[in-house]
Amino acid sequence: MSRDIPEFSLQRMPVYLNYLRTLPDDGTYNYISSGAMAQALGLGEVLVRKDLAYTGCAGRPKVGYPRVELIAAIEKFLRINDKKCAVLVGAGGLGSALLSYGGFENYGIELVCAFDTSPEKIGTYIGGKPVLSMDELNEGCKKYGAVMAIIAVPAPAAQQTAERLCAAGIKAMLNFAPAQITTGGDVKVINIDVAANLAILASML
Amino acid sequence: MSRDIPEFSLQRMPVYLNYLRTLPDDGTYNYISSGAMAQALGLGEVLVRKDLAYTGCAGRPKVGYPRVELIAAIEKFLRINDKKCAVLVGAGGLGSALLSYGGFENYGIELVCAFDTSPEKIGTYIGGKPVLSMDELNEGCKKYGAVMAIIAVPAPAAQQTAERLCAAGIKAMLNFAPAQITTGGDVKVINIDVAANLAILASML
Repeated sequence: MSRDIPEFSLQRMPVYLNYLRTLPDDGTYNYISSGAMAQALGLGEVLVRKDLAYTGCAGRPKVGYPRVELIAAIEKFLRINDKKCAVLVGAGGLGSALLSYGGFENYGIELVCAFDTSPEKIGTYIGGKPVLSMDELNEGCKKYGAVMAIIAVPAPAAQQTAERLCAAGIKAMLNFAPAQITTGGDVKVINIDVAANLAILASML
Repeated sequence: MSRDIPEFSLQRMPVYLNYLRTLPDDGTYNYISSGAMAQALGLGEVLVRKDLAYTGCAGRPKVGYPRVELIAAIEKFLRINDKKCAVLVGAGGLGSALLSYGGFENYGIELVCAFDTSPEKIGTYIGGKPVLSMDELNEGCKKYGAVMAIIAVPAPAAQQTAERLCAAGIKAMLNFAPAQITTGGDVKVINIDVAANLAILASML
């Protein structure tokens, strides 16, 4: 199993995993071919085979991949069985929606708490998670052993938030603020700029 | 100007645009070099030059790119000046946050209305946009001349929603539901699976 995987291949791993998990357990899909997966997901068959080779799970010629083993291999590749804690900064509209979203557990991620500056929100619970003050950021991240964070603050506050999270020991951030953030070398950042994605779509029309 | 651009290069265009737009207008940045952009954005200089070549805007050796012209070239490349209307389906937590989000105008996109199944929401306004019933989908898309849609419904409803949007003439969709959707050949889809992105980040740790 190689970690030296192209970014696009890595991005497709959760797509394969989602698809394989949704197939019925009635015995019809004990084996699944790269061709069937490619067709269902609108991808090329060679691409699917190349991607899955990174997981170390071998397909059998004319039979396909053993589904349960392939799921386990992708989960291992994505390290889903290592539970990880994440915090969220910015409990506004988007932040609140994310706190109430139940999909993180499927990937072994527990969203443990939120941080906000608004006195009306501090001390409340959103989606069952406590909202703490920004003064408690260091302490809260350490208490929960959080290694990841979601940034859902307004754009002008994004960089400062990222720096505070770095100082609190956070190693990976998902940034929803439409602003470029820079971090020290070993802290990973994925930016999700919703408007930019819509603009990319529009430019394809 | 070539449209035959790699997907990753296309994805970086809004990043360049955002960055260039935020630089001060005090004359310091009348010209900006690929090296300065690369450093500010944490990218390779050769990569920046290759990406910007797609816009047709030429940098001048030892001087850089004329900033105002480069902004205009990227805007033209992304077709930001062609105003486009988008609708949203699913006015839950995430959908409501997106309806209240003001960032789409920066890319020439107007989010005009939402559709939902909930009787309590139909007839109300969220972020100043009317929430219509799903029965009005066809009519609403046509009335506003919408060509794009954002899908923010629960996963089990995603595919059906996509099919109804295709039938209503929508040509491009941004899908936030954590489910794979398939559409006819000429309808573009970008999937944003928040949990999957967090999982990808986690696997990099």
